[in-house]
Amino acid sequence: MAGREPHWLNTEERAAWLAVLSIMTLLPGALEAPLQQGAKLSLFEYNVLAMLSEADTGVLPMSELAARTSASLSRLSHVARKLQARGYVQRSVHAHDARVTQVAITGAGMELVVELAPAHVESVRALVFKELSAQDTAALARIGRTIVRGLDGSHWILQE
Amino acid sequence: MAGREPHWLNTEERAAWLAVLSIMTLLPGALEAPLQQGAKLSLFEYNVLAMLSEADTGVLPMSELAARTSASLSRLSHVARKLQARGYVQRSVHAHDARVTQVAITGAGMELVVELAPAHVESVRALVFKELSAQDTAALARIGRTIVRGLDGSHWILQE
Repeated sequence: MAGREPHWLNTEERAAWLAVLSIMTLLPGALEAPLQQGAKLSLFEYNVLAMLSEADTGVLPMSELAARTSASLSRLSHVARKLQARGYVQRSVHAHDARVTQVAITGAGMELVVELAPAHVESVRALVFKELSAQDTAALARIGRTIVRGLDGSHWILQE
Repeated sequence: MAGREPHWLNTEERAAWLAVLSIMTLLPGALEAPLQQGAKLSLFEYNVLAMLSEADTGVLPMSELAARTSASLSRLSHVARKLQARGYVQRSVHAHDARVTQVAITGAGMELVVELAPAHVESVRALVFKELSAQDTAALARIGRTIVRGLDGSHWILQE
């Protein structure tokens, strides 16, 4: 690489990059504030519960839940322990494979998601989609998935 | 709101939202890893130094630096103190207005940015732009700015 001039961003790339960086910095806090206020949940903890609530029987293996929350197993394990201590999930060993830890959402966890979800989806709509046309949303989905593919080629949203 | 069915996301919105959420979760860590490894800098600390390095004289008032890094003044103050302790910035009171704190990048801070910037821009290119066409990049800039406008109508990138 020595002596080669870096390939700096051009004007359009810089504009896109500053927007992505600003969204990445501002959006998590804006989405998290009502969750913290309403239920002392981080955005990540909410997403863990939301993904479980959408799973067929409210149960997912840790590895699958990690994939659906874009998390490492160690980060997820830590958060699952905290959520279990608060009564929102229950970890258990898979009945037919002792190597697999499963996480199940409890009744209290499901009630919490049902309570928080309407306001959360309103936040997402107000903060992300309100000013986007249907074409913009489709373009964002397509471009966003392209970026996700570069970050993790086997990311679960690419299988949807 | 009682009794009103929440306005859930449609299929395209959900696809876009899952992509944005995944990027927001995966991208900061991917960009930060080489900065931590090379210089024990967080992505936010790097952005603070990069914004100062791009300012005309390497000096910005705290409020302007906060705007350019999408940060609260309290978060920025904390980080500016840490960066000063490491010799990368110098805080001072404005010569003509004692209410204004300024932050200046030092020679060591500038050297660090010059050292890290080429690899950082390569990361941004590889993780965000590599698979995007020029049209995709333009669409991402436009849609991204629309979302930023909803998050903060007076955000500095909208003035660029």
